[in-house]
Amino acid sequence: MSRPTAVIAGVGAELGLGAALCRRFAAEGYHVLVAGRSPERIERVAEAIRLTGGSAEVALVELTREDLVVRLFDRAMAPGEGRDPADLVVFNAGNNQRIDFREISADQFEQFWRVACFAGFLVGREAARRMVPLGRGTVLFTGGSASLRGKPGYAHFSAAKAGLRMLGQSMAREYGSLGLHVAHVVIDGGIDGDRLRRARPGVVEERGEDGLLGLDAIAETYWQIHRQPRSAWTQEVDLRPYREGF
Amino acid sequence: MSRPTAVIAGVGAELGLGAALCRRFAAEGYHVLVAGRSPERIERVAEAIRLTGGSAEVALVELTREDLVVRLFDRAMAPGEGRDPADLVVFNAGNNQRIDFREISADQFEQFWRVACFAGFLVGREAARRMVPLGRGTVLFTGGSASLRGKPGYAHFSAAKAGLRMLGQSMAREYGSLGLHVAHVVIDGGIDGDRLRRARPGVVEERGEDGLLGLDAIAETYWQIHRQPRSAWTQEVDLRPYREGF
Amino acid sequence: MSRPTAVIAGVGAELGLGAALCRRFAAEGYHVLVAGRSPERIERVAEAIRLTGGSAEVALVELTREDLVVRLFDRAMAPGEGRDPADLVVFNAGNNQRIDFREISADQFEQFWRVACFAGFLVGREAARRMVPLGRGTVLFTGGSASLRGKPGYAHFSAAKAGLRMLGQSMAREYGSLGLHVAHVVIDGGIDGDRLRRARPGVVEERGEDGLLGLDAIAETYWQIHRQPRSAWTQEVDLRPYREGF
Amino acid sequence: MSRPTAVIAGVGAELGLGAALCRRFAAEGYHVLVAGRSPERIERVAEAIRLTGGSAEVALVELTREDLVVRLFDRAMAPGEGRDPADLVVFNAGNNQRIDFREISADQFEQFWRVACFAGFLVGREAARRMVPLGRGTVLFTGGSASLRGKPGYAHFSAAKAGLRMLGQSMAREYGSLGLHVAHVVIDGGIDGDRLRRARPGVVEERGEDGLLGLDAIAETYWQIHRQPRSAWTQEVDLRPYREGF
Repeated sequence: MSRPTAVIAGVGAELGLGAALCRRFAAEGYHVLVAGRSPERIERVAEAIRLTGGSAEVALVELTREDLVVRLFDRAMAPGEGRDPADLVVFNAGNNQRIDFREISADQFEQFWRVACFAGFLVGREAARRMVPLGRGTVLFTGGSASLRGKPGYAHFSAAKAGLRMLGQSMAREYGSLGLHVAHVVIDGGIDGDRLRRARPGVVEERGEDGLLGLDAIAETYWQIHRQPRSAWTQEVDLRPYREGF
Repeated sequence: MSRPTAVIAGVGAELGLGAALCRRFAAEGYHVLVAGRSPERIERVAEAIRLTGGSAEVALVELTREDLVVRLFDRAMAPGEGRDPADLVVFNAGNNQRIDFREISADQFEQFWRVACFAGFLVGREAARRMVPLGRGTVLFTGGSASLRGKPGYAHFSAAKAGLRMLGQSMAREYGSLGLHVAHVVIDGGIDGDRLRRARPGVVEERGEDGLLGLDAIAETYWQIHRQPRSAWTQEVDLRPYREGF
Repeated sequence: MSRPTAVIAGVGAELGLGAALCRRFAAEGYHVLVAGRSPERIERVAEAIRLTGGSAEVALVELTREDLVVRLFDRAMAPGEGRDPADLVVFNAGNNQRIDFREISADQFEQFWRVACFAGFLVGREAARRMVPLGRGTVLFTGGSASLRGKPGYAHFSAAKAGLRMLGQSMAREYGSLGLHVAHVVIDGGIDGDRLRRARPGVVEERGEDGLLGLDAIAETYWQIHRQPRSAWTQEVDLRPYREGF
Repeated sequence: MSRPTAVIAGVGAELGLGAALCRRFAAEGYHVLVAGRSPERIERVAEAIRLTGGSAEVALVELTREDLVVRLFDRAMAPGEGRDPADLVVFNAGNNQRIDFREISADQFEQFWRVACFAGFLVGREAARRMVPLGRGTVLFTGGSASLRGKPGYAHFSAAKAGLRMLGQSMAREYGSLGLHVAHVVIDGGIDGDRLRRARPGVVEERGEDGLLGLDAIAETYWQIHRQPRSAWTQEVDLRPYREGF
């Protein structure tokens, strides 16, 4: 009996969303490809999964490079020992930073797009190329409220995230009837993870225990979307901590 | 040990969404108030739940009448024998019918609004009045894609559903931080239930087994939204069969 | 040579949007039906137009009453002396008031809907009935940002305005190809008129001369939408003072 | 007495939207910088304006190159003989082409973004840098309905256009209160110009005389948005031919 395989593209710190998704899917019996660009970080995530009885391997990959993304999917879709070709892919890369619009350099604008949108295209396209012929599979994109509204200081981020959202929506419309489930998760609010805790050390105290998005709580919704039978598929869902004004 | 209580407002045929929600929540150990306006139908739904070991009672109610909705909540929020005051409320009423805009009578326009929007207001307000002081609870509204887009022949329906959507969104923004989780489920497509099968007998054959929204599949998403910890709440989610163009 | 005719449904104070629309259209040579429910107010608006050489008459009408709206259109569409049947209709009625959701009475919720949405239906339907057979005409709805977003304290208002928006959008999709131009103007911000000045006397000083929406500036956009050739029609446009955060 | 100056970035054929905008603004007394990448085409547009008594000069520029865009604005903002620094900028570049999502090359995806979004960033940023300190000016972006909805075969286009839309929305929110008017025009439908006529020769006959968006009709709306007093500014407006289903 072989395990199903999931690819989580964009895994960083152990206290990050990518890692939480890896753990959640591993807990359901998935073999997980932990894909990211820091060897230490992804190894730590995979090791923790193995220690608790799960199945995981690392995939060192710069998601903005086409050749590396193609190779990632060559690997993910090849049936391995005791595991099936991937049927679940999450694109979870992205940065965020406030920059006054007039101060954004051309290079910064491009980099935000490369990481949040272009890499999503590469992952989405490879997933579609491999899974549409099989007539099954799920592709989940981590989106943000910036994909829906432009804000002062976030033009670069919003432009990239809106592009990612349209990518997912187009894919959903193109491939839904062929059996590929594509969904976009609108994360609205701060995530209670390493990144935010480092950037703003007092934020957890300030917002309260559940004033930030919980990693496991987010991961649960990804899992539930993947589980949906094809007679009731979600294309878009939002998530925010109950205290977040919106 | 007492059961939690759910109110499903707008239950019709056994093969309808209201009934499926009743069954889903009952299966999780909820005591269910099966609320609708046909005594035979709601009794049949409640009876079927009891036969399978669940706990249910009927509440005969015309949801467009304020006094009756108030009475429904008086009952739902009173701790009963072996059950707690309700912490889960679904508003699921609504009709649909194509009418050329110029042919809609003033009375029709009003009736669609009364059933789909005004009744939702009554249920939402009573739920808020009772549950906000307790600092907990979930209110789920059954919405439709008509709430997002106006279409020829559906001005009356779209106007009512858009009103219901804004009602839910306003409630979510007003009460989220007070612990009340309010969400709106955008049903996009035909539901594989009695109503559609009667109205268009050949539709299941034409669309295929999973070309319509499955009742249990929809109900599962309602349940998962209710289950969300407050560190990651959904306000809006869409659901459609994989074959539905959108 | 006869004048074209415009119906402005929902005219109140001279320093209000309805009156500004009347003046704007009269200045373009339109005969204007000044429709509202205060005889003194609409007479003052009509009189001011006549004093400056324009053509106007009053129509006392409660827009929530079907029989009166039908009569208004009987009059507007009958060719009068020196004027053509109406080819331009504006629905401009509506109130606004903050009410805590739990405090809204059933009657209040209904009244907000009657004035902002149901009356819009009556006006829109009569306009469509009369103008679609002629293959020409413009119907403009005064909307608000509340039609797009629900806010704490405005559930009733938002539900009504969202209904009105979907009404207009449905009409546009149903009748555009038959030659009827239907548009929805999203007013986002306070209007510098009598209503706001009375409700918040210091608001003009506080916001600055152009920190509120100017009446004539709004009216100009309505006029420009009406003027659009049918090869480039607008269905929705927003308007806000430059200082309004959004 | 000196003329105001407008920059139209993205001018191609004489029967194209860029050229129509140049003519419209020139007719209002503007000195027009006709910016595009085909020397013959932009010269023809400028020459036609001069022949009818208008004022125009060409600016040969590849809008995806930062240095060239900077130089364009150096020129546009320098007071010339008989003209003022630019106070009106239009970004009008963009392509469109259906490509099956799985067939899009990484290079194609990037090129669509470069032309439709990155170039818009360069133009928008330079415009903001130069005009915000002056506390006045208008920046208009030519958008499309693809910015609002993803469609099969248009993921690349939709992703780029959605990015451009968020760029404009972010700029509007960042700079509106500083006196810079930023608006996004959603072009929904085929434009009756050289590009479409060449790509689909029979399209005009098929759709009818006004079944396509008219160039001058579109240009008129751009002009009206620029004319708006700052007490009633539009951020977004849609335009479609009356026959377009939407």
